[in-house]
Amino acid sequence: MVVGIQREKTKGHESMTGYQHTEFQPGELASLKFDANGLIPAVVQEAGTLAVLMVAWMNRESLELTLKTGYTVFWSRSRQKLWKKGETSGCLQRVREVRADCDADTLLVLVDQTGPACHTGSTSCFFQPLPLTSPEE
Amino acid sequence: MVVGIQREKTKGHESMTGYQHTEFQPGELASLKFDANGLIPAVVQEAGTLAVLMVAWMNRESLELTLKTGYTVFWSRSRQKLWKKGETSGCLQRVREVRADCDADTLLVLVDQTGPACHTGSTSCFFQPLPLTSPEE
Repeated sequence: MVVGIQREKTKGHESMTGYQHTEFQPGELASLKFDANGLIPAVVQEAGTLAVLMVAWMNRESLELTLKTGYTVFWSRSRQKLWKKGETSGCLQRVREVRADCDADTLLVLVDQTGPACHTGSTSCFFQPLPLTSPEE
Repeated sequence: MVVGIQREKTKGHESMTGYQHTEFQPGELASLKFDANGLIPAVVQEAGTLAVLMVAWMNRESLELTLKTGYTVFWSRSRQKLWKKGETSGCLQRVREVRADCDADTLLVLVDQTGPACHTGSTSCFFQPLPLTSPEE
């Protein structure tokens, strides 16, 4: 079962995925800040493990489709078309929550992921560590 | 103690923060893809709770400072200057890991956060839920 924000009627408490809630403002969707290309970055996080799976971009249409269908839809910058995640691979992302940040220019999408999120077969796209050279504390 | 990637000598196993590792490639830093403005988005995740705290942007210099100092440094697009997170508020982010995604065009930074990450006083910047209108399953 997917519990949407409207159904939770939450106010000032923690959601099932551990994030703080503030009162839902119906006008928030209209006030989102898309960039000069009409896009907003979306961080996708697995609701169960809280692993960050990937970051992709949405335009207004893909966001509306995501909210309406309950599955992530992005805008492919390379192919310049809507892209339902997992449409060919079957690795769909069922949406549990969508949250905007304080500046309303970035989204966080909590999902139930089917199969690996990454096209390489990795659970998460973030599998390449960079070298920290800072001194140990 | 902060355990950097180089110190872990990990290969194909899970790190202390639960993410899969692949072998570290020394050339990865040079192969990162910065956008037309010389920036790369960085998702900041709390290492302990795995909450996504914020998304900000880095240029090459701020990334190098982050890796070298062990504290997050970003590029402020609004102020057009380097911005050490928490420099004025004291809400510093000690870096545990920095990871690139499969396309090398997005970063994930795992941190120990001092105080709230958000300038509003919220633990995470992602506190504004959007309405899901999809049918329940």
